[in-house]
Amino acid sequence: MAKSSTLKDVAARVGVHSSTVSRVMNPATRHLVSHEVAKRVLSVTASMDYRANRAAISLRTRRTQIIGVLLPDITNPVFPPILRGIEEELRKAGYVALVADVGDDKEQYEMVQQMLSRQVDGLILATATRRDPIIDYCIANAVPVVTVNRAEDLGRTSSVVHDEGVGMRIAVSHLTGLGHRKIGHVAGPQHISTGFLRRRGFIEAMAAAKISAREYEISDAAPYTRACGREVGLALLRKRPDLTAIVAANDLVALGCYDALRELGLRCPKDMSVVGHNDMPFVDLVSPPLTTVRISHHELGIQAARLILRRTSGEDSSIVDIRLKPELILRASTASPRRRAGY
Amino acid sequence: MAKSSTLKDVAARVGVHSSTVSRVMNPATRHLVSHEVAKRVLSVTASMDYRANRAAISLRTRRTQIIGVLLPDITNPVFPPILRGIEEELRKAGYVALVADVGDDKEQYEMVQQMLSRQVDGLILATATRRDPIIDYCIANAVPVVTVNRAEDLGRTSSVVHDEGVGMRIAVSHLTGLGHRKIGHVAGPQHISTGFLRRRGFIEAMAAAKISAREYEISDAAPYTRACGREVGLALLRKRPDLTAIVAANDLVALGCYDALRELGLRCPKDMSVVGHNDMPFVDLVSPPLTTVRISHHELGIQAARLILRRTSGEDSSIVDIRLKPELILRASTASPRRRAGY
Repeated sequence: MAKSSTLKDVAARVGVHSSTVSRVMNPATRHLVSHEVAKRVLSVTASMDYRANRAAISLRTRRTQIIGVLLPDITNPVFPPILRGIEEELRKAGYVALVADVGDDKEQYEMVQQMLSRQVDGLILATATRRDPIIDYCIANAVPVVTVNRAEDLGRTSSVVHDEGVGMRIAVSHLTGLGHRKIGHVAGPQHISTGFLRRRGFIEAMAAAKISAREYEISDAAPYTRACGREVGLALLRKRPDLTAIVAANDLVALGCYDALRELGLRCPKDMSVVGHNDMPFVDLVSPPLTTVRISHHELGIQAARLILRRTSGEDSSIVDIRLKPELILRASTASPRRRAGY
Repeated sequence: MAKSSTLKDVAARVGVHSSTVSRVMNPATRHLVSHEVAKRVLSVTASMDYRANRAAISLRTRRTQIIGVLLPDITNPVFPPILRGIEEELRKAGYVALVADVGDDKEQYEMVQQMLSRQVDGLILATATRRDPIIDYCIANAVPVVTVNRAEDLGRTSSVVHDEGVGMRIAVSHLTGLGHRKIGHVAGPQHISTGFLRRRGFIEAMAAAKISAREYEISDAAPYTRACGREVGLALLRKRPDLTAIVAANDLVALGCYDALRELGLRCPKDMSVVGHNDMPFVDLVSPPLTTVRISHHELGIQAARLILRRTSGEDSSIVDIRLKPELILRASTASPRRRAGY
């Protein structure tokens, strides 16, 4: 690779002070320089192969302007729009995201070690569990960290989440309003805040509707996948053939319940109503289009990026929870319970 | 942050040579050390907050073991499984992916500059256009680069793609086998190899089926989005009400054609057959389930990662194209053309 030109070389070519070149090269300060000058600097740097040697800079300033983002499953369509919000907001501040799509807990730990060894300025975790060793590690080592979409139980980090209690309340009251009482809940993983809080929210919402615990049924917790939604949905429907509606812990699980219904020869919504959670992309196109609790993916990402930037800049070390409000999106997977013969 | 411990401190605590610690800290060489020793080293490094100062190492070795990955649109479900294949293969070699989800060309250029300033060892482009200034830049500056899913016209970089000619041939021959002749093609962007080659493949497949250019219709090129599929689909169907089938340039465009059909009161497949391209996640669940040309997302990612690792290691500088074979996935969006009144 050609030896990188220096700030001074560029400044000499353009005929400005080297601090001006430095300002232009940093997207966060570029607006301080006139558009005309910025354009000339950028055109010269492109032709001269100027590259700020970020490794050298980071040794001097201890800042890399990289934020690590850990995602639990990039193939779950809920995460790409969250990531896009994070990236857009980081970019405005001249930061980039080092994204890692990590699977189980063991791999996560190695990935965080790798990220820290590359000196990221902070971490956004979309992977947080309720008791998360990675958060322990970050706190012990003073690594700025925030969680997005999920939160830990101990509340030691700032987080951006949705009000899960409200989410389940609007899902359940939609169904009870249609006349359902025998409602099943396919719960999510209980070691993750969303799975745990949605299960609790379901129970509280059923109690508020004066429906006894004998009437409803909660399935074992499932990972957030279509395959597990199918499996757990099948078991639930076989155990309780009297159910008329299912509240799924998320949309992938709801799509798995669709699979289960098809296998059992049940029609949705005629025989069984289904409500999802997240309003991930494309659930408006499935058959039947899914009624679901919408979370604000893009806003989750934007707020998480703002929180981590505030922490890494040191301008604000307070711990805050930002709780967004979910909303019900009515589509075609819910209807009044079918009258049975003899009723 | 606590001052990082050094290799020597860790080696002293564990009672091994510092080169052993170094081997354990690099996932690519960890297998050279016994499992027992590796476990002890990792447990000590975790408790001592050992962090290889990667910035210092990269100044010395000029290697960061980071590969930059540029994606054109992370919210298009075709890319997450490609990314997952890349990440899995990179991780085996101790590399991580610095992923950037970039939009239009101008932003891409800035992102590449930022990545290079952070000294990535190489780039995988899922964003390549047929004449791509980023590839010019990489070649001029000796930055290892490969393209995935798309290729540039000049063939200066290694690439992993699918055989687009075969893809269109199997789509068209499926439709002609059902009896269709008046087939429309909603083409993709012509400055991208997939859009260009699929359009050419469509024309060649129609010629091979002895269908004259008067019988079929090709729409203006569209970006790969559902919104544009709808818009261009509407225009195509209004211009040519005699069409009985549509071959869409990709699945998002095909889902947009579904939207257009609904607006025009046409049923799929009874009034109009639709074939997509990619078999992206969830198109088996849409209504009707989409018949489409499947590409091997995971394999694209794995092969691209292997190519870039070979180039960055310097063990192989030859330029190769890896062309995978697509296959037709039959679902419910295609059927024989409806007999019209009077036929």
